[in-house]
Amino acid sequence: MNASFHISSAQRGATQFLHVEETFRFASGGEIPRVDIAYETWGELNSSHSNAILILTGLSPDAHAASSEKDPTDGWWEPMIGPGKPIDTDRNFVICVNSLGSCKGSTGPGSNNPKTGGQYRLAFPDLTMHDIAKGAHLVLQSLEIEQLRAMVGPSMGGMSCFALMKQAPRITRHFLAISTAARAEPFGIAIRSLQREMIVRDPHWKDGAYTNEDWPETGMRLARKLGMISYRSEPEWRKRFGRELQDRYNERLFGMHFSVESYLESAARKFTRNFDPCCYLYLSRAIDWYDISDGYENMQAAFADIELESSKVIGVETDFLWPPHQQREICRTFSRKGVDCHLEMLPSIQGHDSFLVDYRRFRPAVESYLKNID
Amino acid sequence: MNASFHISSAQRGATQFLHVEETFRFASGGEIPRVDIAYETWGELNSSHSNAILILTGLSPDAHAASSEKDPTDGWWEPMIGPGKPIDTDRNFVICVNSLGSCKGSTGPGSNNPKTGGQYRLAFPDLTMHDIAKGAHLVLQSLEIEQLRAMVGPSMGGMSCFALMKQAPRITRHFLAISTAARAEPFGIAIRSLQREMIVRDPHWKDGAYTNEDWPETGMRLARKLGMISYRSEPEWRKRFGRELQDRYNERLFGMHFSVESYLESAARKFTRNFDPCCYLYLSRAIDWYDISDGYENMQAAFADIELESSKVIGVETDFLWPPHQQREICRTFSRKGVDCHLEMLPSIQGHDSFLVDYRRFRPAVESYLKNID
Repeated sequence: MNASFHISSAQRGATQFLHVEETFRFASGGEIPRVDIAYETWGELNSSHSNAILILTGLSPDAHAASSEKDPTDGWWEPMIGPGKPIDTDRNFVICVNSLGSCKGSTGPGSNNPKTGGQYRLAFPDLTMHDIAKGAHLVLQSLEIEQLRAMVGPSMGGMSCFALMKQAPRITRHFLAISTAARAEPFGIAIRSLQREMIVRDPHWKDGAYTNEDWPETGMRLARKLGMISYRSEPEWRKRFGRELQDRYNERLFGMHFSVESYLESAARKFTRNFDPCCYLYLSRAIDWYDISDGYENMQAAFADIELESSKVIGVETDFLWPPHQQREICRTFSRKGVDCHLEMLPSIQGHDSFLVDYRRFRPAVESYLKNID
Repeated sequence: MNASFHISSAQRGATQFLHVEETFRFASGGEIPRVDIAYETWGELNSSHSNAILILTGLSPDAHAASSEKDPTDGWWEPMIGPGKPIDTDRNFVICVNSLGSCKGSTGPGSNNPKTGGQYRLAFPDLTMHDIAKGAHLVLQSLEIEQLRAMVGPSMGGMSCFALMKQAPRITRHFLAISTAARAEPFGIAIRSLQREMIVRDPHWKDGAYTNEDWPETGMRLARKLGMISYRSEPEWRKRFGRELQDRYNERLFGMHFSVESYLESAARKFTRNFDPCCYLYLSRAIDWYDISDGYENMQAAFADIELESSKVIGVETDFLWPPHQQREICRTFSRKGVDCHLEMLPSIQGHDSFLVDYRRFRPAVESYLKNID
């Protein structure tokens, strides 16, 4: 147990909370007096603490990646995690950490600011992948795990994995990167920038002083629609919706007419009140800011000190938000430094979201890697 | 000259205006008492009226496609049209028509409503490609052109060309379709739907009652940014901007940080006051509504009565808004009915906008077709 910080923990359902009662310093220079990190675990940690797999998540998921006795509701990656499943909890002690900055249990802009008694909101320090990685690292330290069997990082989670490997180059023996990237590129930055602008231009945003009764609902709804558009793909929607008309909503002027429009509306409505706007902005910007090669001559130099026994990189051909060339770049860079790295590009048509829906392809792609690492 | 309607004409700079002083009936059932159609021409109509080329435009351009003696300012397709250029005005009489429903000279929602004295705005009838095609057809009738040598339809213009060929199946002998489609598909519909929602959700939209002093500027700016994102491509921006930082605007919270963000901001600012929001909405929706196979068993049946000597279809591999499979579909459908059709897919990296910027590839692709038709 690392003795340099005072911790305690609590549990709510299956979610555990690491309470760190010491100043948390952000890579940007800011600090807050204390943090909570929410996480869940499945399976048993072996006596040598050598069978742990850490999952870091995309922007929006919580730590509840799969069901368990303590919380039998389906998790966001239910078909992937459990006994005999691709991330096999019979053999591995699996940990999923909710990102610092999120509103799903870990401390973030929506958390209580001890100095004011209100929420942090825009008083929260600038958040980067380094801080999210540091939060996850605190959980590992509290569990006395010095080295992981594997890390699994889908989407933004892959970036936090990279940041953690840079902080602790021997933190994991194996690394599974899924539909992710080692740096943000301008097309994705443009999309996220526009999503953020939709939120901050909503009159109800009020420079972060929105309330439950006065919520930037329209901004969040529009941002989520653009999210859905960028997470999926043209061929999927062509096959799924075609030019089918909708009958779910009254047709508004310039509003709902086609099925694809009501699908977006319905998906966006579910999200708007389910995620804190301020947390969304902080996490979204943290993705843009991430570039593993910051401060290095190039990406190869940035990868130099990471020690891995093997890596697998999975990507999807129809993903235009985290595009295939970025997965190829990760695998090429690992391979050049001598890490045994395997790239698998899947022909899924669901774009970036494929790892959350195309289990027919993703389950075997994940299983074949994780079952063969010792 | 078709005697069934009363026309007169006028000229402002190089732009000519056909005034049709008769009820214009829209395909949707609506009607307005009169219409103007703005157009420009280059070159000379030969005595047999057989050397005319008609260009129908994308959503936003006006009729000023190229410079001329009467208006020496560059047009929106300047490198493409002129003496010895790919659309050669030494040999052809070239006409570019501003779409009905636009705010660039032809009658549209921003035009004067004789019944109220104010602008039509939302009192303008539902607009479809059929109406835009009918407007262009009136110009051809006024010029006593029964049959064109060729029609050229980039982007939305290709849809209006299809609609015109359905109204007058022998209207042209040759057809050059560029980065277009014979129907709207759900991915593009989703993007346009979100753009429209950004505008109508701007508090200054006021159900179409905006004024010059109270303009839905934010909605237009955001919609244009999404337009820019969907018109270009991931590889282009990666090469053009990378992770370069911007120094054009003060960095706002969650605002400008990267060059790609200031590029979008600057491009969007130019557009917001330069296009009428209501016209934008009508034209955008007209694209979604277009499906040449409406009322037919399939696309092949819809193409059956169109009489063409030849066609060429040009598309761009990186275009995800008007995707390559839709250009392939046009060419396949023409070929199956016996029309000599050639498909050329260009490796331009500028996505849908390539026909407006990648002249190195587009000039020869257009020239090689048009110079070989009689």
